[in-house]
Amino acid sequence: MDSSFAIPTDQYDRAHKPKAIDLSHHLNQLALHRAPNQLKELYRYMGIPGMITMAGGIPSPEFFPFETLSAEMLAVDSVPLDQPRVPKKPSLLSWLWQKSTTSFTIPKYVDHATPTTIQLATSLQYQAATGPPALPLFLREYVEKIYRPAYSDWDVLLNCGATDAWGKIVFMLMERGDACLVEEWTYPGAENSFIPLEVEMVPIKMDGQGVLPSHLEHVLSTWDEKKRGKKRPRVFYTIPTGQNPTGATMLGDRKKEIYDICVKYDVIICEDEPYYCLYTGPWIPKSHEASLSEVAKRELDAEKKEGKAGQEAFIKSLPPTYLTYDYQGRVIRMDTFSKTSCPGSRLGWFTASPLFIERLTRATEASTQAPSGFATAMTAVMLQKWGFDGYIRWLRGIKATYRTRKNWMCDTFDDFFHLEFDPAPHGVATNPAVRDVLEFGRGVTCYSKTAKSGWDEKRGALGPPLISFIPPSGGMFVFLAVHLDEHPDYHSLERNGADATRKLLEKLWQTLADRLVLFAPGWAFDANGPHAIGGKGVGYFRLSFSIATYEENRKAIGTFAKVLNEFYRL
Amino acid sequence: MDSSFAIPTDQYDRAHKPKAIDLSHHLNQLALHRAPNQLKELYRYMGIPGMITMAGGIPSPEFFPFETLSAEMLAVDSVPLDQPRVPKKPSLLSWLWQKSTTSFTIPKYVDHATPTTIQLATSLQYQAATGPPALPLFLREYVEKIYRPAYSDWDVLLNCGATDAWGKIVFMLMERGDACLVEEWTYPGAENSFIPLEVEMVPIKMDGQGVLPSHLEHVLSTWDEKKRGKKRPRVFYTIPTGQNPTGATMLGDRKKEIYDICVKYDVIICEDEPYYCLYTGPWIPKSHEASLSEVAKRELDAEKKEGKAGQEAFIKSLPPTYLTYDYQGRVIRMDTFSKTSCPGSRLGWFTASPLFIERLTRATEASTQAPSGFATAMTAVMLQKWGFDGYIRWLRGIKATYRTRKNWMCDTFDDFFHLEFDPAPHGVATNPAVRDVLEFGRGVTCYSKTAKSGWDEKRGALGPPLISFIPPSGGMFVFLAVHLDEHPDYHSLERNGADATRKLLEKLWQTLADRLVLFAPGWAFDANGPHAIGGKGVGYFRLSFSIATYEENRKAIGTFAKVLNEFYRL
Repeated sequence: MDSSFAIPTDQYDRAHKPKAIDLSHHLNQLALHRAPNQLKELYRYMGIPGMITMAGGIPSPEFFPFETLSAEMLAVDSVPLDQPRVPKKPSLLSWLWQKSTTSFTIPKYVDHATPTTIQLATSLQYQAATGPPALPLFLREYVEKIYRPAYSDWDVLLNCGATDAWGKIVFMLMERGDACLVEEWTYPGAENSFIPLEVEMVPIKMDGQGVLPSHLEHVLSTWDEKKRGKKRPRVFYTIPTGQNPTGATMLGDRKKEIYDICVKYDVIICEDEPYYCLYTGPWIPKSHEASLSEVAKRELDAEKKEGKAGQEAFIKSLPPTYLTYDYQGRVIRMDTFSKTSCPGSRLGWFTASPLFIERLTRATEASTQAPSGFATAMTAVMLQKWGFDGYIRWLRGIKATYRTRKNWMCDTFDDFFHLEFDPAPHGVATNPAVRDVLEFGRGVTCYSKTAKSGWDEKRGALGPPLISFIPPSGGMFVFLAVHLDEHPDYHSLERNGADATRKLLEKLWQTLADRLVLFAPGWAFDANGPHAIGGKGVGYFRLSFSIATYEENRKAIGTFAKVLNEFYRL
Repeated sequence: MDSSFAIPTDQYDRAHKPKAIDLSHHLNQLALHRAPNQLKELYRYMGIPGMITMAGGIPSPEFFPFETLSAEMLAVDSVPLDQPRVPKKPSLLSWLWQKSTTSFTIPKYVDHATPTTIQLATSLQYQAATGPPALPLFLREYVEKIYRPAYSDWDVLLNCGATDAWGKIVFMLMERGDACLVEEWTYPGAENSFIPLEVEMVPIKMDGQGVLPSHLEHVLSTWDEKKRGKKRPRVFYTIPTGQNPTGATMLGDRKKEIYDICVKYDVIICEDEPYYCLYTGPWIPKSHEASLSEVAKRELDAEKKEGKAGQEAFIKSLPPTYLTYDYQGRVIRMDTFSKTSCPGSRLGWFTASPLFIERLTRATEASTQAPSGFATAMTAVMLQKWGFDGYIRWLRGIKATYRTRKNWMCDTFDDFFHLEFDPAPHGVATNPAVRDVLEFGRGVTCYSKTAKSGWDEKRGALGPPLISFIPPSGGMFVFLAVHLDEHPDYHSLERNGADATRKLLEKLWQTLADRLVLFAPGWAFDANGPHAIGGKGVGYFRLSFSIATYEENRKAIGTFAKVLNEFYRL
């Protein structure tokens, strides 16, 4: 795997970085009691030339039914970097490209195989929990070049995707009834891993850049173990980029601030980053494109170019990760191939300190063993064919596509509603860091376009604010605040003792579903804490722009605009 | 998937079988607290035609890099059923066959796809924890026809192989510090799942057919909760066929007896069956082939034939499983494709009651999700191409090969030692059930062939018994007892306070490794209970015959014979 990147080699010089500190007091009883393999002493004998091994219990590859596996793969530059805002032809995005493919075949046996050779006799055999050496080799290069951890002795370990990864972390760090720091709106799939351990969620308030350092500091500094009946939380679960469900992305300065608080209170940061390469930056409404600053225009243009400059612009555009600030080894990062290759690979990796990697390896040996050899073989050969530069080019195509799709959805709101850009409308806080870069990364409030309730150029909004959202700077979601306290029935419902917010949102969700538009209701993501984003009177929908076509976007948001007019009786 | 099997349809009539009883009191706190997916209510809306779904968080299959996946597969009858005892050409087993292959290609999109169609747009996408419907459909037919569970409402659930399966069971049934029934010699990989929970192993004595009902009854009936400081064990982990490490196989009558004891004491039976289709029956020494009974000859011959009669003979030869006797739903069976297809698939399945299947599904959602779509797609299409009959034919080839390899190893002992067939030599109990079928399924003791210590036709053994084993009736292992108490230094070592058995076995193991022969030492498999197989003065090696060639077998056992002569100073 070659790489032509001009990152100075001294940045890879691990010798100048500190080693991870001892954080073994974070291991739970389960992790402390994990035993090494009792037959481990045999492994060093197995590699001796001429050794006749009757010690293992492995089948002969001769009887694996698969003689070869092949794949036809999209060319690495299949997806164009400079995508038109509105598709020229309807339906699938495939109008964008002249589909070109390359192919490869993996035989059962390869002559003169080296440890990084992928052959079915090895891939479809039992493998060490660390998987085929070719994958960690590639991933270490990727982590070093893209994340640049601040300590020296980190390593990577394969897992079966982020859900598997987070489950393994939970069962390494948490005891029954512990408390865990989460974002005030959080991913329910992550909760499912610790709910069975009766772990209490401790939600931290957020704005458009993720959790607020001030609130995190407040929660940790005022934690009363006696009053709460449990120890101060030692684990923080976070999705820093394109957060699910809010779409918030945390930039470098904020991460540094959060990291320092976690050092102060000895908290392990678990960053779940499925959307990291889907960091698409701020949404720029069509009407504002012309008035962009020259610097901003150049930054956007740089990423549309093939070649080295474009590759470097992409890497430069990525937010620093928590690993970049991690000089102690207290960050456990979860990456996945689900969004950059395919979810069916069930393949991801941890980046963490030797202590955590070793315990996670033991946990892997006693559960999933290595990820499926079909997945690791296919993914490893794909990466070997592409190389580091090729993989970066592939990621850029994916990023360009998510930006296009984000534009489709946000532009459609722009078309069907009157938009008001507001620094902090209705409890939806803005993202100052993004706003500093490009002034459109702000909260947007949508008003009806109907004649009687619409927008008047002189007088502003004639009707109530209906919905607000922060245009996401990453990921695949728009988190939509619905101003239910503006609904004509809201106050009478409240007076009658109903939970008017939930009741009205449920009614709106059902009406939309009946009209063939399916949004995810926000209540599923509520960590049930005090809210900075939303709260009483504001309900939420999470809208994914990852899969709907341009036409479906227009149809769904158009229907939504109509339904809202009826719902608010405008 | 068609099937021409003539199994009477009334055997499939689940209506006449009882339903699983309520065993929910076996669920641990973790399992009781598992929550259903909070967005579950959305799923029923997702399938409505015309629905625009913005509710999910899934990437578009357009951007999966794989356009097609293909495989070249061995023909289902590649491996001959009638294999010569000694290979005609050296080295690999492939001399056996004229390798013929078939191939298939899985496209990203298939026109007019049905729920059982395998296409990459589905396989490489997020999938339900239950996996692609084609697989459970096939597996339900297989379980119904081969295992014939005694209750009606069982189901199957995919997992990532048996280690993953057993881990999920442990975290569904066991609490910290529980006790778990195991075989006196057991698989250390299984221990690794419950050791972190500080679960105490309660070993049950075995003979050549597995655990002894009398000892199981004794342990359960005399369990003193106060004295032991823990509740009576509620879980029994067992490998009934080709047990690892002993090679023991339990037949029907014994299973029924064990099952009834488990009903009496409310124990859940977890049967781990990687070697089920590798049930190869008793070893028949070359010298005894001619004197076989006509019935025995016919049974052996039937399995060598292609076509329906041969298929039926194979199915008839398989031992009944615990499921066959399970009228309550207290058996959780683990099957895997590791030995019948390839370990790298990391694919297996549970067969269990609705209660356990539902909780295991929740656990799967919060950990591995579905197995890798690469593995399920390849395996599902392979099974679809082969069909039920084809898969059975494939299994027969695998079985024939393991029988050949078992013969290689046992025959080699026959060549390098003097063998004495003994009903119960030196603490190695025999397997009466097998002996009743064919008289050679008995314990075998090996004596040196050197002139001074060898075998005399008239006087019998001149030297000490060196090793004993029960020729395995299944699996891939010979479990070899070494009579260390016959070693010239044994008693002096004992008098000096050493653990002579362990010390001498370690020395022998090291000598063999230095001579390029690697066996697995038995101590790794010791559940540290009272022994019926072995004990003080008897050390063990586990020898795998799954991967060594004919020549390697002869070289390794030949070296072993020489080393033993030197070791015992014969």
